[in-house]
Amino acid sequence: MHRIKVKVVEDALDANATIARANRDDFDRHGMTVVNMMSSPGAGKTALLEAGLRGLEGVRAGVLEGDVQGSYDADRIAHLHIPVAQIQTQNGFGGECHLDANMVRSGLNALPLDLLDLLIVENVGNLVCPAEFRIGEDKRIMVTSVTEGEDKPLKYPLMFRACELVLVNKIDLLPHLDFDLDLFLHHLDAVNPGARKLLVSARTGDGVEEWREWLYYTAQGAKATA
Amino acid sequence: MHRIKVKVVEDALDANATIARANRDDFDRHGMTVVNMMSSPGAGKTALLEAGLRGLEGVRAGVLEGDVQGSYDADRIAHLHIPVAQIQTQNGFGGECHLDANMVRSGLNALPLDLLDLLIVENVGNLVCPAEFRIGEDKRIMVTSVTEGEDKPLKYPLMFRACELVLVNKIDLLPHLDFDLDLFLHHLDAVNPGARKLLVSARTGDGVEEWREWLYYTAQGAKATA
Repeated sequence: MHRIKVKVVEDALDANATIARANRDDFDRHGMTVVNMMSSPGAGKTALLEAGLRGLEGVRAGVLEGDVQGSYDADRIAHLHIPVAQIQTQNGFGGECHLDANMVRSGLNALPLDLLDLLIVENVGNLVCPAEFRIGEDKRIMVTSVTEGEDKPLKYPLMFRACELVLVNKIDLLPHLDFDLDLFLHHLDAVNPGARKLLVSARTGDGVEEWREWLYYTAQGAKATA
Repeated sequence: MHRIKVKVVEDALDANATIARANRDDFDRHGMTVVNMMSSPGAGKTALLEAGLRGLEGVRAGVLEGDVQGSYDADRIAHLHIPVAQIQTQNGFGGECHLDANMVRSGLNALPLDLLDLLIVENVGNLVCPAEFRIGEDKRIMVTSVTEGEDKPLKYPLMFRACELVLVNKIDLLPHLDFDLDLFLHHLDAVNPGARKLLVSARTGDGVEEWREWLYYTAQGAKATA
């Protein structure tokens, strides 16, 4: 059974690459920087988007939300008066555990692309498959919570290796956890020595200014800061 | 592209059902109760297994660990001197984000099935796909951490609906979170009113005695207590 499946995944990934290139061409035509944001369920992607986009001046940002079903995160972003569209992977896509280039493409016409400098795609919460599907993005970033344990870079190396920025969230909880931050950073360095790391707390605001700066410079295409 | 994919998933699920039935027959022949344990990455499946299996008297338990790669969790369980085998979904299975019946079958001959009353299969950390693949188990259970937010039953209803026991873990962190436990339980009731819920902390031991009792009575096949 798995032999058949692997063959089909390869076909799907080839088609994905073709559609990702078409997305890339559209993003370039609109002069838009696109960030693919990934994490486990509940690591805090939406909370960090709310914190980072609130007060982000000089950048016209939009958000494309990916969820299996519902529009809870999109509703939260909409409260910031930022253009947002929702992709439900349940409807028409079979309940997929990730976004692919085709799903992203289907959501683009719900956004005013001509009016955006920066589009953030909030992927489905999952540390495996989202890293396997390029969507035509400029940058891939991830959120990891200190509540998830130090071993996650070793158990999900493809995800941690795919990202150039790792937001280590919920650092306000560190005093209440048996989490060894140095050991986590050591594991992260082992799988992705070049990754930029930001220690943040969406709850207290720690590190949010640096995260907002990253969004600002990324939207300017100032890759030197990444 | 997604049309082709949906077709193949249906074929794969049919094959999965066939192999799950074969697993089921084997489990029955060995007089073994099998539990499929699921959660997000880092919710605490392994920590709760360590806590619950330590001191579980009168039950001969074994564990089958599923991970994309590595054997970190299996090594932790092995320290308890409990039979454990590791399935790596990376090797030969294409890096799958879940276990299916075939993967479980491939791991069974690494365990002394004749000597076990209870087999716990610790699935890959993921709230989407593991719920879609039966493995021939008696019971499906899940761990959710209070750090993941109240909205998870609404965003991942298939997973929360699939399970008859929901372990709500890390309750020692409640004083430090903006987590509304009543709202979470309300959302859980909305998608799965019949689920049994246990509030636990693998760190402090809160609720672990009840979790161990659940394991004991499940191994006895005392379904009335579930």
